[in-house]
Amino acid sequence: MIIREKISNILKSTEYNKEVTVMGWVKTFRNNQFIALNDGSSMSNLQVVVDFANTPENILKKITTGAAISATGTMVESLGKGQTVEVKASKIEILGESDAEKFPLQPKKHSLEFLREIAHLRFRTNTFNAIFKVRNALSFAVHQFFNERGFVYLHTPIITASDAEGAGEMFRVTTLPFENTPRTDDGNVDFKEDFFGRSANLTVSGQLEGELGAMALGEIYTFGPTFRAENSNTTRHLAEFWMIEPEVAFADLEDNMNLAEDLLKYTIKYAIENCADELDFLTTRLVEEEKNKPQAERSDLTLMEKLNFCLENSFERLTYTEAIEILKRSKPNQKKQFKYLIDEWGADLQSEHERYLVEKHFKKPVILTDYPADIKSFYMRMNEPDEQGRKTVRAMDILFPGIGEMVGGSQREERLDKLQSRMDEMHIPQDELYWYLDTRKFGTAPHAGFGLGFERLVLFVTGMTNIRDVIPFPRFPKNAEF
Amino acid sequence: MIIREKISNILKSTEYNKEVTVMGWVKTFRNNQFIALNDGSSMSNLQVVVDFANTPENILKKITTGAAISATGTMVESLGKGQTVEVKASKIEILGESDAEKFPLQPKKHSLEFLREIAHLRFRTNTFNAIFKVRNALSFAVHQFFNERGFVYLHTPIITASDAEGAGEMFRVTTLPFENTPRTDDGNVDFKEDFFGRSANLTVSGQLEGELGAMALGEIYTFGPTFRAENSNTTRHLAEFWMIEPEVAFADLEDNMNLAEDLLKYTIKYAIENCADELDFLTTRLVEEEKNKPQAERSDLTLMEKLNFCLENSFERLTYTEAIEILKRSKPNQKKQFKYLIDEWGADLQSEHERYLVEKHFKKPVILTDYPADIKSFYMRMNEPDEQGRKTVRAMDILFPGIGEMVGGSQREERLDKLQSRMDEMHIPQDELYWYLDTRKFGTAPHAGFGLGFERLVLFVTGMTNIRDVIPFPRFPKNAEF
Repeated sequence: MIIREKISNILKSTEYNKEVTVMGWVKTFRNNQFIALNDGSSMSNLQVVVDFANTPENILKKITTGAAISATGTMVESLGKGQTVEVKASKIEILGESDAEKFPLQPKKHSLEFLREIAHLRFRTNTFNAIFKVRNALSFAVHQFFNERGFVYLHTPIITASDAEGAGEMFRVTTLPFENTPRTDDGNVDFKEDFFGRSANLTVSGQLEGELGAMALGEIYTFGPTFRAENSNTTRHLAEFWMIEPEVAFADLEDNMNLAEDLLKYTIKYAIENCADELDFLTTRLVEEEKNKPQAERSDLTLMEKLNFCLENSFERLTYTEAIEILKRSKPNQKKQFKYLIDEWGADLQSEHERYLVEKHFKKPVILTDYPADIKSFYMRMNEPDEQGRKTVRAMDILFPGIGEMVGGSQREERLDKLQSRMDEMHIPQDELYWYLDTRKFGTAPHAGFGLGFERLVLFVTGMTNIRDVIPFPRFPKNAEF
Repeated sequence: MIIREKISNILKSTEYNKEVTVMGWVKTFRNNQFIALNDGSSMSNLQVVVDFANTPENILKKITTGAAISATGTMVESLGKGQTVEVKASKIEILGESDAEKFPLQPKKHSLEFLREIAHLRFRTNTFNAIFKVRNALSFAVHQFFNERGFVYLHTPIITASDAEGAGEMFRVTTLPFENTPRTDDGNVDFKEDFFGRSANLTVSGQLEGELGAMALGEIYTFGPTFRAENSNTTRHLAEFWMIEPEVAFADLEDNMNLAEDLLKYTIKYAIENCADELDFLTTRLVEEEKNKPQAERSDLTLMEKLNFCLENSFERLTYTEAIEILKRSKPNQKKQFKYLIDEWGADLQSEHERYLVEKHFKKPVILTDYPADIKSFYMRMNEPDEQGRKTVRAMDILFPGIGEMVGGSQREERLDKLQSRMDEMHIPQDELYWYLDTRKFGTAPHAGFGLGFERLVLFVTGMTNIRDVIPFPRFPKNAEF
């Protein structure tokens, strides 16, 4: 058994004169005397004071940035700034050396681009320590939120033979060889010979299976990886990302909006309460970063202010139709500053429109509902046509400042006949989804759910701007490193 | 907004005379009067008493097994057995009909085999309600356990370009077509043209990436899906299953064993405390099921007794070498009842040997350590050879009664030179794993971790015997249904 004290515990303690052993990685070593030591348990380093006279020179030489050491000594009150306790070491042991010339993380500021290339080491920086602590806190908050409400965490399948949802391009999962691929008599690939006896893909969403759970267990949620084989090299998209998808029986669109707003506020609040140091650091980081931007592009609010603002205000709720009216009359539309001008009902909203609504018009998170049926998925509940005969569905999108779409959801079409005719219209094969239709045949009921892109929530809470910086090892076109 | 009271809340309440609306699925309807209603929130049904005289016949006719209804009425003290409260309905509304002739779930006992074929509906049975509630509780317990201890939940990648771990056959993830597959000049498949610019697979373990996290954040864990493309059609294997993999810096094998034993006891205890009804039901279910077995095959302990036994006893810890001695001298070995006789040191243990140790010899969970290097992975820390020159590694397997291997882990080889020579011996390309070796080059330190197969834990706690019954939609050879 290895006996050591975690640095996070020591930094909170005032048990002066206690003898402790700490282990961690050297951040800096000043004047052959002061080691800033970090073991990952805290963003803050512990100052370890070396007894220069009694430490062998071959040990001193190896106390370099990145080296792992064990230090045994006494906890003493610190006279230095920004810390109340330090460890006066009586013994230093080198666990693992780090060649200062070769170690890629020097004690200076590195660009995020550079750190992305050494994603296996970037966890050792303050920024990424903070990001992954916040990500961890948000994950736990998600589970705790649903657990408190009696939802069942359902592990929907990752590998799926159904590609009917049409949420995006899919990755094939196969064990068939490219050489001498088994063929049927008519020359097609014989997927009966593939591992699952049919063509299989990585899931784009657990929703359809989640509905099966909700229509029996009442309230479920998923929290797992989802995949899109889309060739988008943006700061907003990943080929592999984590999604949270609750689904609730006996719920309508309003219940759905309330649940999503509650979830977002709960998780943000949890992060504020449990990641004070990390959010403080990330707030300062963002202020520093924005100093390099022209005044006009800087945020009005700091990161912490933005998070608190979110908690203290209700999200603005309006229909797509109302949003279109606002956009039509908006300055950038009138002055033709939008790339895509809004001139008629039915247009899909582009990122510029969403940003205008959220960042300029309402200046807070917005929930848009009741989108035109033509631009939404088959499973969304059809509204009665309006007086002009326009067809909408009970969809909702939650738009966040700086992020865009954070949540997409809907009340589901629970009426078998309406669902079937919608599927026919959209060329979605009913026989493939017989199991989905069965929930409408046997005891159908109103139900609703949504998907929350977890990395987008982490982006919002950390104030980072590139989605590749908020997941440990990002997957995107031409990259599956580590 | 849909206003309804959850049945789990009503069953706990004594607010008699309160007017409530409940919604759920009809389990049974007796004497045109008593509905057993279930909304998934609880295993137990709520008795809804229909006002026969004032309920229209066309409504009465539609109160069939599987139908979804809404009932409004008064909470009254129940005179019936096994319940303290029921709802005297003044109004019944049919939300979704269920054709009694066609609904596959009749109010009778169905075989698990049959229910597997209708996995989209089996959530509505008591057995599967209980299983997935227990699974949910165990998941939450895992997160809470690590959260309390300051571990960071790390989402290691699902798609990986590394196939170096050698834990098993992998699924290919690709967007390349089987027709007109892009080829290099020398006729090979040109994976540069594939989505990730290289050949990619589904992960078999997050361990190697987890180590990268631990060697910076100190203590991490993963909890996500992992995959094996193995053609095993057994009651113990899935092609897609969930794994929990903690990894701890500054920890040795003993710390690792303690962590694993604590985790298992914590999660089992959590399930006992939070799933009393479900475990009660599953205990009775198992007793009933074992009645069909010959006396000799029945368990000595009931499910609840087995779980409590686990909590109250320390797991037996011994080395592989000690285990071999026990097995050599064992009756089934002497009487040649083992299929694979143990005659010399170095043999890999088969399921029959593990079962003997756990179920016959020690009669409790067992942790075996220090396995022969030849039968274990490259990343496990090498021990000094023993007096006979035999090489072992700091591995541990935790064996559970009725389950076999529940946990596999090790202290990792943190010494660069030893790791490199082991990789060379085992033909594992160092250049592909440069990032893994970097953790040994820059500040290496002792660390350890393990993998816990989540479905095996769910099997143990639910007393189920087929792994396909403890995951919502099992994936196995020739099956990716739903």
